[in-house]
Amino acid sequence: MKKYTEMSAEELKDQKSALAIEYEKMKASGLKLDMSRGKPDANQLGISRGILDAVDSKTLTVTESGIECANYAPLDGIPEAKRLMAGLLMTEEDEVFVGGNSSLNLMHDVITFCLMFCLPGCEKPWIKQGEVKFICPVPGYDRHFAVTEHLGFTMLPVPMKSDGPDLDAAEELVKDPSVKGMWCVPKYSNPQGITCSDGVIKRFAAMKPAACDFRFFFDNAYAVHDLYDDKKDELIPILAEFKKQGRENNAFIFSSTSKITFPGGGVSAIGAAKENMDFIKKHMSKMTIGYDKINQLRHARYFKDMNGIKQHMKKHAAAMRPKFDTVINTFQSELSDTGIVSWNKPLGGYFISFDAMPGTAKRAVAMCKAAGLTITAAGATHPYGNDPEDKTIRIAPSLPGVEELEKAVKLFCVAVKLAAVEKLLGNK
Amino acid sequence: MKKYTEMSAEELKDQKSALAIEYEKMKASGLKLDMSRGKPDANQLGISRGILDAVDSKTLTVTESGIECANYAPLDGIPEAKRLMAGLLMTEEDEVFVGGNSSLNLMHDVITFCLMFCLPGCEKPWIKQGEVKFICPVPGYDRHFAVTEHLGFTMLPVPMKSDGPDLDAAEELVKDPSVKGMWCVPKYSNPQGITCSDGVIKRFAAMKPAACDFRFFFDNAYAVHDLYDDKKDELIPILAEFKKQGRENNAFIFSSTSKITFPGGGVSAIGAAKENMDFIKKHMSKMTIGYDKINQLRHARYFKDMNGIKQHMKKHAAAMRPKFDTVINTFQSELSDTGIVSWNKPLGGYFISFDAMPGTAKRAVAMCKAAGLTITAAGATHPYGNDPEDKTIRIAPSLPGVEELEKAVKLFCVAVKLAAVEKLLGNK
Repeated sequence: MKKYTEMSAEELKDQKSALAIEYEKMKASGLKLDMSRGKPDANQLGISRGILDAVDSKTLTVTESGIECANYAPLDGIPEAKRLMAGLLMTEEDEVFVGGNSSLNLMHDVITFCLMFCLPGCEKPWIKQGEVKFICPVPGYDRHFAVTEHLGFTMLPVPMKSDGPDLDAAEELVKDPSVKGMWCVPKYSNPQGITCSDGVIKRFAAMKPAACDFRFFFDNAYAVHDLYDDKKDELIPILAEFKKQGRENNAFIFSSTSKITFPGGGVSAIGAAKENMDFIKKHMSKMTIGYDKINQLRHARYFKDMNGIKQHMKKHAAAMRPKFDTVINTFQSELSDTGIVSWNKPLGGYFISFDAMPGTAKRAVAMCKAAGLTITAAGATHPYGNDPEDKTIRIAPSLPGVEELEKAVKLFCVAVKLAAVEKLLGNK
Repeated sequence: MKKYTEMSAEELKDQKSALAIEYEKMKASGLKLDMSRGKPDANQLGISRGILDAVDSKTLTVTESGIECANYAPLDGIPEAKRLMAGLLMTEEDEVFVGGNSSLNLMHDVITFCLMFCLPGCEKPWIKQGEVKFICPVPGYDRHFAVTEHLGFTMLPVPMKSDGPDLDAAEELVKDPSVKGMWCVPKYSNPQGITCSDGVIKRFAAMKPAACDFRFFFDNAYAVHDLYDDKKDELIPILAEFKKQGRENNAFIFSSTSKITFPGGGVSAIGAAKENMDFIKKHMSKMTIGYDKINQLRHARYFKDMNGIKQHMKKHAAAMRPKFDTVINTFQSELSDTGIVSWNKPLGGYFISFDAMPGTAKRAVAMCKAAGLTITAAGATHPYGNDPEDKTIRIAPSLPGVEELEKAVKLFCVAVKLAAVEKLLGNK
């Protein structure tokens, strides 16, 4: 088949008619599916069900060191949970703060602390310094952008490259002392599934932002979310690299078991070097006496160690692989001839990032919606929901079963093609 | 025996010598006990151990309405948990937001939202209006005061009366539009165990603060913490009274199961009328996708309803009663003759408030500490840790066993008397 861009108006019209018939048929088939978020399916939730037995009325809820988890304190988590989460964060145990079920909540808290209170060695909190700017790799995670937008920060997009965020661009931006932070999903990024190379992490660590109170917010949500046994991305320990540079105060690292055990009942954690950790504990101590330690104990007992988590994640990979394969294979068969779209093939994580023909993402997503398929809103991958090229669409394949997913992706492909053909015809 | 205030210097000196011998003997006995916080003991934690079986790998983690608790969302909690917590908050089910294990965290979050964002119908957040003042009933809860102090608010003490905070004083203070809020533990207050009378709650509800963005923060932590079956305080539903006055936006209510099930694994909640609830959800939605719903399900299944909680609380009362009795009886036998101290006899809650002779509380607490007994710091019951009369001491009898508690309270009585005698001699 000819590429769309090489088609005449006549050929495009024929194509449009054929696609419109296909689309209407699909629309009539009564699909009703919400793929807007990266939610695990029932099968994936089932993988972790055994954790619900890790603590029961017959077990003592006491840690190895004698802490009664049912009672108040300690603030920063029980030793077993700190040890476990240190594995995900790739930090030392004493560089870990264990929270509740939401790492987003921890990120929001830490950013709010930075906003309201003086960071170590600095003289004023962010809020007393006028405009606060934050660097946002795009495409990126909409909930990150929502936090920084909600707090009134100015978000500065930098593009993602194949080995991580564009640090040439970031290095320019951090010369401005009102640039106070940067988001980064260092492994299997949301939505592209890109992992920062060793070189990129080392360059992050060596960066010298003008602001003394600048912080990188690394959200390592997909630390152990490899899809394949034989090919996987490796992330080097981030905080260790910052320490080598003597710049360990520049980095906060976050992770959670939301996509290891349960989004609705997991454990989250922050990794930070000594001075940052003291800052976190100081302000957390006014907010809570301590997080749910019984659930921390459940996780520590169920997994024992990182090896336990890694074995467990093989089951998740087995559940996710066919879904990723379905999406990629359908894209391949339905779209590769068109010459107008592209997508990534991640080795892990939760998402596939899809680039529609510029100027057609919103239209394609709307057409899916009209036919019963909810996709993450076009633009959601960019700060302020504004994708200037209107092309990036996040595909979250985890929730539907393979059969339904295939149907959904076929609809998506038709919508993407139809939107492109409409656009090309409009331009003629 | 003569009252201390009626004793001659000679008599006081004799008293001092006798007390000093007693004190040294007690000091030598090797007591080592921390009674500084209201922590349940192992026996009390055991009362709730069955909740750990309320959800296991063989049970579905799905709500009555079909929500999978293991997955993301909903933000404001599962229906069963909202219904249960509505009982503690005495609100309608749709006026409930269910959080994680810490109501202190929810209070901190809501206050931070008020500080950073415009409350309904108002034009500026607190932070953009200069000084923020907060009314603090004294004696009160140190962790409340810590939140408002940490955020830089000016705290204005008002005295507690036998039926709740002094509202004559509060009504004067709220004429100042920079007064933005007031703390209140409406039932079995910390530390006095005072419950707001119907009249006081109605007067709260009718109060017309000058600030449109004024809020009462009611911490109903001891909603079901009666000590006796035959005599108990009753609190009328707070939010309903505010609604009667058309002033339902003025009140936030908080509660938790920290002292019903586990401090380290309970469930917390906010009660708020529609506009306040929309405000909370709007800002919470940027912070988290949802709290731990598996633990919400555990609580809802274990208790079923308020009657379940009330039956459960009888076991707590049975565990706590002998401790309260031990403290009160020891005070009675050791101190009632001295004529210089007083204490309350609460019908519920977690604390007994003790008034030493003015100017001696710090000294008495220090003497306890030197003899191995840690009591809540003198002054902790007041904003900035500053008890101008240096007299109020919070007794938290929950943690030790009865025998150890009796020993501790006897030491406390000796310390209190010794500090008083020293003071009286110093004044002669």
